[in-house]
Amino acid sequence: MTDTTTPVPEPTPAPEPTPVPEPVEGRVTFNADGLVPAIIQQHDTGEVLMLGWMDAEALRRTLTEGRVTFWSRSRQEYWRKGDTSGHAQYVKGARLDCDGDTLLIAVEQIGAACHTGDRTCFDADDLTPVVGQVEGVP
Amino acid sequence: MTDTTTPVPEPTPAPEPTPVPEPVEGRVTFNADGLVPAIIQQHDTGEVLMLGWMDAEALRRTLTEGRVTFWSRSRQEYWRKGDTSGHAQYVKGARLDCDGDTLLIAVEQIGAACHTGDRTCFDADDLTPVVGQVEGVP
Repeated sequence: MTDTTTPVPEPTPAPEPTPVPEPVEGRVTFNADGLVPAIIQQHDTGEVLMLGWMDAEALRRTLTEGRVTFWSRSRQEYWRKGDTSGHAQYVKGARLDCDGDTLLIAVEQIGAACHTGDRTCFDADDLTPVVGQVEGVP
Repeated sequence: MTDTTTPVPEPTPAPEPTPVPEPVEGRVTFNADGLVPAIIQQHDTGEVLMLGWMDAEALRRTLTEGRVTFWSRSRQEYWRKGDTSGHAQYVKGARLDCDGDTLLIAVEQIGAACHTGDRTCFDADDLTPVVGQVEGVP
């Protein structure tokens, strides 16, 4: 037998969960409960649909799965929007604000964003404020 | 002398601070710090400009004065947007969400909404998420 040996291939590492893209880690400031507010906006019309809350794992899922996942403060569980209602939110963009403590997620909203059946969570309750007039403009 | 007396006019009551319009009181759910998040949106373009926080007094001022006032968590003081920067926010509408714990304020934004000089606080930091494809749509 000759002494020629076949190189042993490197073992294939086990797949790891998709991490939050590196630049995001450490840049998001979560509140004392470990949450950050996420404004959800319809990507083409600009409608503000709702505000939800995300912990680091919900944010990781939202940035990597193409679907919006929240942390439900009332149910204390992850909540991938649309899994029970069918009213999914498909991710079209995600931005972090200047303080790193608020997210703006652009989505394609299927059906109603609000659990009441309204298109947005802001449809029902107009606070009828005093309207401000820009100074110097008649 | 006759007994004809001039009626004493009722004393003029001292002016009271303008209250939050009655239907709003008791409907807003403030967090443990007494604050509620307010999404600020340019009324005509739909741009989401920033998210700020209001206590009951900041909300009262915002709904009655035609200008947006926040509670600054970092400075622990009221902050009427634009008083130092000139970049005022004139109120065009105000809505409360279905849970009563988030505000959506439509404004006419003068100049930059962000303290960095950007038009919005979400201009600088794109998180480049994986974009979701709506199922059944090529």
